[in-house]
Amino acid sequence: MKDFNYYAPTEVVFGEQSEEQVARLVKKYGGTKVLVHYGGQSAVRSGLLDKVCRLLEKDNIAYITLGGVVPNPRLSLAKQGIELCRRESVDFILAVGGGSVIDSAKCIAYGVCFKGDVWDIYLGKAKPSTMLPVASVLTIPAAGSEMSEASVITNEDGDVKLGYSNDMSRPKFAIMNPCRTFTLPPYQTAAGVTDMMMHTMERYFTKDDDMDLTTDIAEATLRRMKTAIFAVLKNPEDYRNRAQIMWGGSVMHNGLTGCGVSDDWATHQLEHELSGMFDVTHGAGLAAIWPSWARYVMHENLSRFVRFAVNVMDVPNDFTDPEGTALKGIEAMERFYHAIGMPINIKELIGRDITDEEIKEMARKCSRNYTHTCGCLKVLHAEDMENIYQMAKG
Amino acid sequence: MKDFNYYAPTEVVFGEQSEEQVARLVKKYGGTKVLVHYGGQSAVRSGLLDKVCRLLEKDNIAYITLGGVVPNPRLSLAKQGIELCRRESVDFILAVGGGSVIDSAKCIAYGVCFKGDVWDIYLGKAKPSTMLPVASVLTIPAAGSEMSEASVITNEDGDVKLGYSNDMSRPKFAIMNPCRTFTLPPYQTAAGVTDMMMHTMERYFTKDDDMDLTTDIAEATLRRMKTAIFAVLKNPEDYRNRAQIMWGGSVMHNGLTGCGVSDDWATHQLEHELSGMFDVTHGAGLAAIWPSWARYVMHENLSRFVRFAVNVMDVPNDFTDPEGTALKGIEAMERFYHAIGMPINIKELIGRDITDEEIKEMARKCSRNYTHTCGCLKVLHAEDMENIYQMAKG
Repeated sequence: MKDFNYYAPTEVVFGEQSEEQVARLVKKYGGTKVLVHYGGQSAVRSGLLDKVCRLLEKDNIAYITLGGVVPNPRLSLAKQGIELCRRESVDFILAVGGGSVIDSAKCIAYGVCFKGDVWDIYLGKAKPSTMLPVASVLTIPAAGSEMSEASVITNEDGDVKLGYSNDMSRPKFAIMNPCRTFTLPPYQTAAGVTDMMMHTMERYFTKDDDMDLTTDIAEATLRRMKTAIFAVLKNPEDYRNRAQIMWGGSVMHNGLTGCGVSDDWATHQLEHELSGMFDVTHGAGLAAIWPSWARYVMHENLSRFVRFAVNVMDVPNDFTDPEGTALKGIEAMERFYHAIGMPINIKELIGRDITDEEIKEMARKCSRNYTHTCGCLKVLHAEDMENIYQMAKG
Repeated sequence: MKDFNYYAPTEVVFGEQSEEQVARLVKKYGGTKVLVHYGGQSAVRSGLLDKVCRLLEKDNIAYITLGGVVPNPRLSLAKQGIELCRRESVDFILAVGGGSVIDSAKCIAYGVCFKGDVWDIYLGKAKPSTMLPVASVLTIPAAGSEMSEASVITNEDGDVKLGYSNDMSRPKFAIMNPCRTFTLPPYQTAAGVTDMMMHTMERYFTKDDDMDLTTDIAEATLRRMKTAIFAVLKNPEDYRNRAQIMWGGSVMHNGLTGCGVSDDWATHQLEHELSGMFDVTHGAGLAAIWPSWARYVMHENLSRFVRFAVNVMDVPNDFTDPEGTALKGIEAMERFYHAIGMPINIKELIGRDITDEEIKEMARKCSRNYTHTCGCLKVLHAEDMENIYQMAKG
């Protein structure tokens, strides 16, 4: 069994009244001058941004705001934020939004305390020694960034999307009010659930079969998300199921579902190139890649794909035909993706045929000019990446 | 759905090599003068105490030691520890042992920073504003104290056992090496698993039926412990299953299995009187009480007892007879307790008939002279406590 560290120090404050505690929590974690970071107009229109600012004012906490974060958050805006925070002596960054806003906030928080170019951190050329504290008022359950150590930033200069992980970036607190997710459109809701399930699936499909408790918990969370998504697609104001999804997004990416097992992340890395090139929704991109990835790698640990088919996808176990059962599990996942409005290949994702040149270009980027591999269950070289993209063409 | 806070900041370092990191972790969390707190001879005999001390020395971290913690840890020793820490300017308490040692460490950590009598904190008469940092090298998975906010102390003066919970007491780190649990005797191993399962069952049997993800995770952990205990009773050096149990003990009491639901704790409180009066093993005491508690309260939320029977105890669901199914679940739990060497009533626990006077005395103490209730699924008054003790006589 793999040794592991588990560290998820974020204080979660969950429920309908949770936002009321924002000023108390900022103070508790040492914030005196806050950057309130947000995305587009939805935080303004919903009144959430105004509410957060009013609560900070009421408690005499100084703040400035910076909006404009887009999905696949951009390095350029983060650099603007870094300059702004330095100029204004900001000591705490509060993200009001979803994973993109939180990831952008983490990038800013690294950059403010870092002398060089913050992009070097994402390139793996430099390691930050300290950063500003980050916290969030979450509005989109998906990325899990509200409790995770990860952030992903896109450098528009070359459409390169890179992730960086450091325990120090785990947010101080996360305020989660499921009501704030009632207005999420069906597509975004489904893409979010796809993303959070994938965070656990990236840890579930492993060669380490001996950390049973982690696997049991992973399956329990995956099954629950499968049920909850249909309930909220039917009734967007279903508080109970919005709550399962919101809490699920955190639990499935805070490390719990990866204790004692290797993690893979190939599907995420293959998808990063898709959203880097076509600016598609991350969760939808994952759905477009995963079935092909799964078929490509399943023989590396067939029994795990059988287990997934039976325990998560409710496929009857044909004990005489493990491969058939495993494949039925992948097919069941494809039906699930379609049922929640997600694509299962690249053609469905981008609305046209992808060209062989585009595939080659993605494989080149994903392998960083043929110098890097990705994945762990099966280590994927550029050629494997190209094969999987080809299988996923549709 | 109940709003909730989830806060489990303890850094878990898990695996065969985990102990090597003790000095690094003490430094990381600010320790410069450490009290190494431990129990009886097992930490000495196993060489663990010596190893920890040697590792601290190697990193030039000053320390003193205080042993002698017994199960149901005593207030008098904690008070000795408080005096010692003050005299020696200790700023960090490292518990090497199980839940009793960690609980004693928490009590000392409160007391050092508290001007009055530390027992007043447990009596609810005073609230501490600060405390020394606590961490552990865990040797007995059971109490979950290594990640929890709780501690339980016994005041020998009157045999009163009281718990106190405060988020600030959550340990900074927990080092967990499953090999250290190989030598735990079967009875202690089984009592530990009974205790950890009960930590989740106290949160599972609730009227809040709407936090599905929490319930799913709870069931997954309970099922896994049921399997793992038989494996380690058969082969005490089964690393894989010792690891499930060790990690299970933390996950089942760090708050995760209670998110969004009420918690009950009546079985724990009823048991505290048993171990206060007869100095029995806590986990065994829980097993002696729970079946009677369950039968007494099951009609408060019958469907939950049915769910437990079917999803945890593998009882076939008789859809025409929910009460029968629920009762079969309780009976299956009794068979499980017997199979792992636990008692299912007080007679089996203490080896003789308990007297009516003793029962009345326990009900008096548990209700703090008829002024307090316990439980949440069903609020238990002194009369109910007496009824349950009577049912549990055996």
